[in-house]
Amino acid sequence: MSSSRNVKPPVFNPLTGAIRALAMDAVQKANSGHPGAPMGMAEIAEVLWRRHLRHNPANPKWADRDRFVQSNGHGSMLIYSLLHLTGYDLSIDDLKNFRQLHSKTPGHPEVGYTPGVETTTGPLGQGITNAVGMALAEKVLAAEFNRPGHTIVDHFTYVFLGDGCLMEGISHEACSLAGTWGLGKLIAFYDDNDISIDGHVSGWFTDDTPKRFEAYGWHVVRDIQGHDPVEIEAALKAAQLETGRPSLICCKTIIGAGAPNKQDSHDCHGAPLGAAEIEATRAHIGWSHPAFEIPADVYAAWDAKAKGAAEEAEWNAHFAAYAAEFPELAAEFTRRMAGDLPADWQAHADGVVAQVIAKAETIATRKASQNSIEAFAPKLPELLGGSADLAGSNLTLWSGAKGVSKTTGGNYVYYGVREFGMAAIANGVALHGGLVPYTATFLMFSEYARNALRMAALMKVRQIFVFTHDSIGLGEDGPTHQPVEQTASLRLIPNMDVWRPCDTTESAVAWAASIERRDGPSSLAFSRQNLPFQARSAEQVAAIRRGGYVLSEAGTASQPIAPQAVIIATGSEVALAMAAQQQLAAEGVAVRVVSMPSTNVFDRQDAEWRASVLPKGLPRVAVEAGVTDGWHKYVGIDGEVIGVNRFGESAPAGELFKYFGITTEAVVAAVKKLVA
Amino acid sequence: MSSSRNVKPPVFNPLTGAIRALAMDAVQKANSGHPGAPMGMAEIAEVLWRRHLRHNPANPKWADRDRFVQSNGHGSMLIYSLLHLTGYDLSIDDLKNFRQLHSKTPGHPEVGYTPGVETTTGPLGQGITNAVGMALAEKVLAAEFNRPGHTIVDHFTYVFLGDGCLMEGISHEACSLAGTWGLGKLIAFYDDNDISIDGHVSGWFTDDTPKRFEAYGWHVVRDIQGHDPVEIEAALKAAQLETGRPSLICCKTIIGAGAPNKQDSHDCHGAPLGAAEIEATRAHIGWSHPAFEIPADVYAAWDAKAKGAAEEAEWNAHFAAYAAEFPELAAEFTRRMAGDLPADWQAHADGVVAQVIAKAETIATRKASQNSIEAFAPKLPELLGGSADLAGSNLTLWSGAKGVSKTTGGNYVYYGVREFGMAAIANGVALHGGLVPYTATFLMFSEYARNALRMAALMKVRQIFVFTHDSIGLGEDGPTHQPVEQTASLRLIPNMDVWRPCDTTESAVAWAASIERRDGPSSLAFSRQNLPFQARSAEQVAAIRRGGYVLSEAGTASQPIAPQAVIIATGSEVALAMAAQQQLAAEGVAVRVVSMPSTNVFDRQDAEWRASVLPKGLPRVAVEAGVTDGWHKYVGIDGEVIGVNRFGESAPAGELFKYFGITTEAVVAAVKKLVA
Repeated sequence: MSSSRNVKPPVFNPLTGAIRALAMDAVQKANSGHPGAPMGMAEIAEVLWRRHLRHNPANPKWADRDRFVQSNGHGSMLIYSLLHLTGYDLSIDDLKNFRQLHSKTPGHPEVGYTPGVETTTGPLGQGITNAVGMALAEKVLAAEFNRPGHTIVDHFTYVFLGDGCLMEGISHEACSLAGTWGLGKLIAFYDDNDISIDGHVSGWFTDDTPKRFEAYGWHVVRDIQGHDPVEIEAALKAAQLETGRPSLICCKTIIGAGAPNKQDSHDCHGAPLGAAEIEATRAHIGWSHPAFEIPADVYAAWDAKAKGAAEEAEWNAHFAAYAAEFPELAAEFTRRMAGDLPADWQAHADGVVAQVIAKAETIATRKASQNSIEAFAPKLPELLGGSADLAGSNLTLWSGAKGVSKTTGGNYVYYGVREFGMAAIANGVALHGGLVPYTATFLMFSEYARNALRMAALMKVRQIFVFTHDSIGLGEDGPTHQPVEQTASLRLIPNMDVWRPCDTTESAVAWAASIERRDGPSSLAFSRQNLPFQARSAEQVAAIRRGGYVLSEAGTASQPIAPQAVIIATGSEVALAMAAQQQLAAEGVAVRVVSMPSTNVFDRQDAEWRASVLPKGLPRVAVEAGVTDGWHKYVGIDGEVIGVNRFGESAPAGELFKYFGITTEAVVAAVKKLVA
Repeated sequence: MSSSRNVKPPVFNPLTGAIRALAMDAVQKANSGHPGAPMGMAEIAEVLWRRHLRHNPANPKWADRDRFVQSNGHGSMLIYSLLHLTGYDLSIDDLKNFRQLHSKTPGHPEVGYTPGVETTTGPLGQGITNAVGMALAEKVLAAEFNRPGHTIVDHFTYVFLGDGCLMEGISHEACSLAGTWGLGKLIAFYDDNDISIDGHVSGWFTDDTPKRFEAYGWHVVRDIQGHDPVEIEAALKAAQLETGRPSLICCKTIIGAGAPNKQDSHDCHGAPLGAAEIEATRAHIGWSHPAFEIPADVYAAWDAKAKGAAEEAEWNAHFAAYAAEFPELAAEFTRRMAGDLPADWQAHADGVVAQVIAKAETIATRKASQNSIEAFAPKLPELLGGSADLAGSNLTLWSGAKGVSKTTGGNYVYYGVREFGMAAIANGVALHGGLVPYTATFLMFSEYARNALRMAALMKVRQIFVFTHDSIGLGEDGPTHQPVEQTASLRLIPNMDVWRPCDTTESAVAWAASIERRDGPSSLAFSRQNLPFQARSAEQVAAIRRGGYVLSEAGTASQPIAPQAVIIATGSEVALAMAAQQQLAAEGVAVRVVSMPSTNVFDRQDAEWRASVLPKGLPRVAVEAGVTDGWHKYVGIDGEVIGVNRFGESAPAGELFKYFGITTEAVVAAVKKLVA
């Protein structure tokens, strides 16, 4: 250990010994994993989890539990050990199956796999950011639901994080906002062990982290001896008492503490200690039990079931009193935490869509999106909107929007220019429950948030990503701002529903479908420029939810004729396809137009539907102002795709569509080539 | 203006008046753009560009010029005005064509479009990060080439940045590293105007920025009146004198200063001022000239051509003296700055590939990548390696690697856990010239760097992205770390060459091709697990550079037979395809195996080559352990694709391939289905 750091080693005891032993033994058995962080944070974990964390192992979904996030997710055996020891439904056999297929103990903590895991961590920096979102949700819900004498929403959010999280840029975005919002119930423990994978961090991480966090407006507790329970306890109590600022407790620790030959080295970061070192560690920490054997008295000392049941029972009693005095609020809180939509949602949504159709407006779909928000939000107080400093461009504000601030709750978040932080904070909000976040930026800058979009899809959270300025149609801002490959790229994310609506009706339906979706996020791509309204039958309106449907059959509605080809289009290019259909009809070529606002949703339809929309054997042309590769899935090798396979240019939008050949003429020519 | 900020307004004069007028008039004429930042930074720009910047407008490529980066790229009329006024090849007509198709003045500054623009900015935070890379390159090259009495490499890197850049997470990554590296010749001017698009920033940006940068080890000059040339000049001189730390000069400014009714408001951030306000501004700042008319005396006062020519001439004389004393170093410097490879490169590369073939090793391609680096790097001192804290996993270190530190140069950068910062810093290194950066992380975390990869492709810089752990084959780390859609997604970026080699030979060739590529970046996807060596004829080895080629014809090499189907595979799945070919042969089905290490490169081949590899009409099966959509471009609607269209799982790799059906049996079955 680098003596200059003056880290006091642990005084070993059976409580922390259990964590160290489980971590090193499970990693050894799996022959992969990260023993260093669990062993280095055992004392911090013991103080927090045995003495302070308010949770009920029998009910990991208790609404007002403290949230705990292990942002340094690679050290997953720490949280698994804690969940097991305190009494969650996670058996010793589950721990023995660490990192095995379909176990409840995957390599990194994954929400939905393991009771008590609040979020999926591993991609560094996102755990702390999710935690900021959870603390934000707590603040917003408390402001909405608590009443004098009734603090129904009142919990801490605790985070463990390491050097890696602090190096990642997203930690800047999230922690800056946490300071601005004054999230006093967010308490983070920094595992300052001086080691990352490449070795001692002095060559690449020399930040004065306490000073950095003070610059964000945090309450910082410096220089805590991270193996000294007394110091940890005092720091934690100070953090709990500080209600106006989030707290960072900086704990100097020894990675792998207890492993006599490998501690304080990256050798124990991400690999099994090996049989010899494990034996030496057992001796060193005074743990004589075989692997995966925990004495009954140790279990008893860790068991949180009785305490947790009492805590939840007490809250349930409070909630009952609250419900007696505020029955509507209580019912609303219950609905919201369950993630259910209001009982009359469907009727309301249908009414909104009917109104949109009646108006038949030709407007930008970003404006259609705003109109959708305006129509849906009054019915859905759970919507928590926001934008990364583009509210006026993304059109995410509505008449009832009220900004969250340091001193107030609200339903709209000014995230500043922080796309990645925004998306991951909103993931945390969604995971907390009680709120449904929508967030926004230009479609191009979905790239800044890319891995948080993926994490939303992986975790199956309900977040609605509003991405405006969805093509070269944004014009003069040029190639740095013009999406070309972004829509196609979003479609590749498993479990991400991507919508690119062509008019007001498809925009409203995409919004409704995204709100109703409970098992994953949706990305909505909207235009900057006006798009013409398309007329539809009631059947066609219903078919929008199929992702792809016949918008216009060859011939006329009353006298359809058999098409010679199909044009598939999305978003702003649907109008081109419709114009091409007319022009082709005038030339005697019968063409069907398919609007495909969501390829992902279309792909989920049954084979019969898909074949009815895209009949086998008919030549197909796809048109979309973006990269073309993905469309060959629908048009085949011999079909035609009109698109943009290069970077954009800075110029007025109209000129760009001509320059890049995204025109009616191009679609007409492509069809003629195929039917010739 | 918020009086609490105590910002002293400008004393207007014709020098700054020219900037303000050009900015507001060009934005007005284009009817789009951002007048606020140019008008707010006019005094800062005047002090830097007229009095300090060492540059020669007649030769924007002078090796030792000061670099200037406008990180707040939306305010592009500022740099265009400066380039025009100081004498670059950017005429008043070019300014009149602001934001028009194919003009030299696109909406955001784009390298390659405009002489004097060093990097493309607009995506916030990346400009400052590119600048950190330029300053790093200067430091590394100075350490390598300067000799006592001969400081051939000795220039400043200046940056303008705004609130948006400072909110973005990447600014944390880049500025933290700049502090760690002690980049004393990096000087950034913070345009602290208190405004971002959503309005006054107090609701979402409350950092104590000076304190934050002090925490990074920067020299911070606080509270400069940004419209007072005397204060700006003093701060700049102090920054130049500080050689051990980068400098941040915090300038309080008024956005849109000079526009009497719109200044200090987001109204002037990103929209034309309008005719009335422009007239009022002319009166307010005392600028009576018509739009785009600059008096001769103002031009004369700005003209930097004579001074710049003299500065470059002086440097040329120094360089001549250096060349006389150190002819080899001077020749090497000239070669490096030209971006040329050594004269004997091709022979060396061929020799390396021949040795790799002779060894015929079965190893992980990440190890093959390391072997390639080990073989190529001694010949290429311009290689500047690095990894985002995964050196031992990405295998990017080689025997001659020497880490860059605060006090030394080197050829390897420990970037810490900062993927986005790494990629964008390396873009700056490449743009500076003299170095060819390669950077590395897990393929999954290419997502954290996503927009910097795109910017590399847009800017056509030579950067080599090493992405290891390229599939579910990484095993136990689970879905957060297992790439599924990443390779497919990278292939969608225009001008990005993506390689996924199947063995040591393809790995070495991919490396060589990436090094030789001068007009864009390459992404190399390497396996964690061992992959068998494939035997090839000399013709086949040469064909690897075609991106896709016949690795194994049906029948035998001496007696090929006509195939009934084609199997296309990449990377780790090529071995599966080869095994399937054998099994099918035993069952009487003749199959060709195509290895397709780079679809992008294959797509660039002539039609004849493509048809020779994938003959029309032959049924096709593609196999790749990732999302399948993109492969329909090659196999059509009726072909089969074996892949992974969902998130991965945590388990040993072998089990995962079976579980996800990426097996020889699946390939065999797919072929049989098609030829049945």
